[in-house]
Amino acid sequence: MSNFANYLTSQRSRFESDLCDWLKMASVSTDPAFAGEVQRAANWLADRFRDLNLTTRIIPTVGHPIVYAESPAVPGAPTVLVYGHYDVQPPDPLNEWITPPFEPTVRDGKLYARGATDDKGQMLTHLLGAEAWLKTTGQLPVQLKFLIEGEEECGSQGLNEFLAGKYDPALGQSSLDLIRSDIVVISDSSQYGPGQPAVTYGLRGICYYELRLSGPRQDLHSGSFGGAVTNPANALAQILSAFLDKSGRIQVPGFYDDVLPLTPAERQQFADLKFDDAAFMESLGIKAMTGEEGYSTLERRWARPTFDINGLWSGYQGEGAKTVLPARAGAKFSFRLVPHQDPQKIHASLEAWLKKLCPPGIEMELVDMHSAPGSVVPLESPYMQAARAAITRGFGKAPVFIRSGGSIPVVNTFAQKLGIGTLLLGWGQDDDNPHSPNEKFLLDDFHRGSAASAALWDELGKLKS
Amino acid sequence: MSNFANYLTSQRSRFESDLCDWLKMASVSTDPAFAGEVQRAANWLADRFRDLNLTTRIIPTVGHPIVYAESPAVPGAPTVLVYGHYDVQPPDPLNEWITPPFEPTVRDGKLYARGATDDKGQMLTHLLGAEAWLKTTGQLPVQLKFLIEGEEECGSQGLNEFLAGKYDPALGQSSLDLIRSDIVVISDSSQYGPGQPAVTYGLRGICYYELRLSGPRQDLHSGSFGGAVTNPANALAQILSAFLDKSGRIQVPGFYDDVLPLTPAERQQFADLKFDDAAFMESLGIKAMTGEEGYSTLERRWARPTFDINGLWSGYQGEGAKTVLPARAGAKFSFRLVPHQDPQKIHASLEAWLKKLCPPGIEMELVDMHSAPGSVVPLESPYMQAARAAITRGFGKAPVFIRSGGSIPVVNTFAQKLGIGTLLLGWGQDDDNPHSPNEKFLLDDFHRGSAASAALWDELGKLKS
Repeated sequence: MSNFANYLTSQRSRFESDLCDWLKMASVSTDPAFAGEVQRAANWLADRFRDLNLTTRIIPTVGHPIVYAESPAVPGAPTVLVYGHYDVQPPDPLNEWITPPFEPTVRDGKLYARGATDDKGQMLTHLLGAEAWLKTTGQLPVQLKFLIEGEEECGSQGLNEFLAGKYDPALGQSSLDLIRSDIVVISDSSQYGPGQPAVTYGLRGICYYELRLSGPRQDLHSGSFGGAVTNPANALAQILSAFLDKSGRIQVPGFYDDVLPLTPAERQQFADLKFDDAAFMESLGIKAMTGEEGYSTLERRWARPTFDINGLWSGYQGEGAKTVLPARAGAKFSFRLVPHQDPQKIHASLEAWLKKLCPPGIEMELVDMHSAPGSVVPLESPYMQAARAAITRGFGKAPVFIRSGGSIPVVNTFAQKLGIGTLLLGWGQDDDNPHSPNEKFLLDDFHRGSAASAALWDELGKLKS
Repeated sequence: MSNFANYLTSQRSRFESDLCDWLKMASVSTDPAFAGEVQRAANWLADRFRDLNLTTRIIPTVGHPIVYAESPAVPGAPTVLVYGHYDVQPPDPLNEWITPPFEPTVRDGKLYARGATDDKGQMLTHLLGAEAWLKTTGQLPVQLKFLIEGEEECGSQGLNEFLAGKYDPALGQSSLDLIRSDIVVISDSSQYGPGQPAVTYGLRGICYYELRLSGPRQDLHSGSFGGAVTNPANALAQILSAFLDKSGRIQVPGFYDDVLPLTPAERQQFADLKFDDAAFMESLGIKAMTGEEGYSTLERRWARPTFDINGLWSGYQGEGAKTVLPARAGAKFSFRLVPHQDPQKIHASLEAWLKKLCPPGIEMELVDMHSAPGSVVPLESPYMQAARAAITRGFGKAPVFIRSGGSIPVVNTFAQKLGIGTLLLGWGQDDDNPHSPNEKFLLDDFHRGSAASAALWDELGKLKS
């Protein structure tokens, strides 16, 4: 066993306790009420980097700060950019958590807390992989640059402005020059399943919108006015129902024009994973599934675009019956995109289409909350082979190559701005509930991820830069 | 001028102050949090009846109490049942009130408060009409029985059980024997317009439901699960959009089977009212209207059935974007019914139809919140002519005969249980916002209503019982 592996094993309980300290900070980025907690989480992380003598900066943005840290250059070896985020999703509905979201609790080898897997726990493994090298050998086999943002869950506006690459007097260089690297590493996704690590080579993109409809100046009595005044809630249901046809196909004009179809080889590879629909439904508490006709569950989740309503509101939601014709109705909804679909093109088509659908007597407002294209990354690069070797060392098993239904917009940005690819090395499990109550992270995955990370620096160090 | 009319004029400021005292009590019946205020409002009313030496009872029910009061029998004259309610609608959205809902405020001759017109202000006119007779002549020309409930805004369960007519040991007779009368008088609706009083001869009924859909055990990440797991919010939009076709016709099977069509004479009478669509839209702040094809605005509001969503909820409704596939979605919705439609028949057809519409992977629950059939009352009865004369005296103008889109379920109950008709004498205005923020009642309408009420006891006293 290598020195760094011994070190990692010896420090497990301290690592767990450190992660719990960080998870107690309610760094919910989307809600301004939590801004102080977001700042505390950033400071905590920066202190950890400074403890390793990395050159560390807390970089202010229009929103929440970026934590940046780098180790010394290693001539002849690659420079690796580790991206992650220290912000978390809102914890509601709070009453569905078994233990409070910001009081980390271990049950049955699993650490429960908002952010446990998405992304504090996963991100921290790379800091610990670096720590193992630095504490045992005093140096790293590659140069590491950590770029850890605080707005991944709310559109990454600060990071996007940072990655615009303007010359920054505070840095003495452009932000892109600061982070220039050979490869990106991100751990913010899942393994294929328990005991089966994976490398993710494809991601879906997203377009997220809020649709606001307004009718009469104020809520009306549904008896006196119903039947004559266009009801915004009725209109909302009508409009939202038009997005999907009976076969599950999205009806926005031109939506499928640029969709990259699955190759027969990919469909075979997915089929070989022998995904268990029955176990999947059992785990979610559902008795049946629906989706786009002609595709398997994995294809629907990983490689086909979707339309989902994420939130709905109108009128009276309290106890009892209120006979009201609501003045307003609204929805949050999003498309998941597959590679080659263009969010701008979809937005334009969507807006024109919605204007036609909106009935007389209703004013419509469409708000573009955020968007990012999908991506696929090449399977054949030496970096990918290094990742395969490192995961095999850390987890004791070779990974499979999968895609993910989620979106990591920054992967596209790194490709565009730095011209480099991304290794997506998810240490989580599909049932870790990253955006739901009772989010968790297996402690074994946390430690195996740290071991794989330390091994990855080793494997990448063997590559000529 | 008659004695009672002089008395009413002299007491105006005290009457206004009394009404304001009552309106300060937040008697919101649908929300258990307000139960104490509901009880206070009942006590206040009972005390007012006792001040007039009426035999007064606060009758407990499974829900909020009924306030009952009666004057002595008048041999040879009719007995008149005055029905009203002292409970009010919930006041939300609170931030849209110019002055707080339970701090009555006069602006420009209008009294603003929740319950001002619906129904505390309107109900009180009949107590004041009685007071005028009692204070000036010591007696009433008819026997009055006041039946004032506290659950009109939440389904009237207590009143319905009371009207089941069981022998009540506390009363020493059956509840129906207690209230047996020749005619009912209700003021809980609108005049035709400012300066144009009306008698309402038709009411719509209602079926009010809550639909609850549930999918996965908990909210899911819309990236990881979207496209494969049936989304309850998507399903809700799909189901709710199926209720109306493009011509505004309700699609529940058999829904129109029993609809009483408008006669050509009624359509002509409605047309003669020369309803001003443009002014109506202007008053509501809307630029266009939609509704069932082939019908005018008044026909749509008064005499055709409707489908309105009254409330909607699902997923994330907070600030920002949450990429969630919601576990649950729900709606409150209602039909307005016209005479001859049967709520039970509609419920059965609705439930069977919804089960077919509900997609795989979704569990559905349909809750019947409350219902009542519509009604029409004969225009030719001597009671109706007495009402016409009394309104002409109180308001200085003869009433027109109209219908109303709202529901007063108890009108049907009185017809069924007591075999008597109802005089619907609305003192309010269409823009009084009875179920909206900034509910109001014109003080002139309050006083003219009291005068018309006092005159009504006079006119009815001239009829032989």
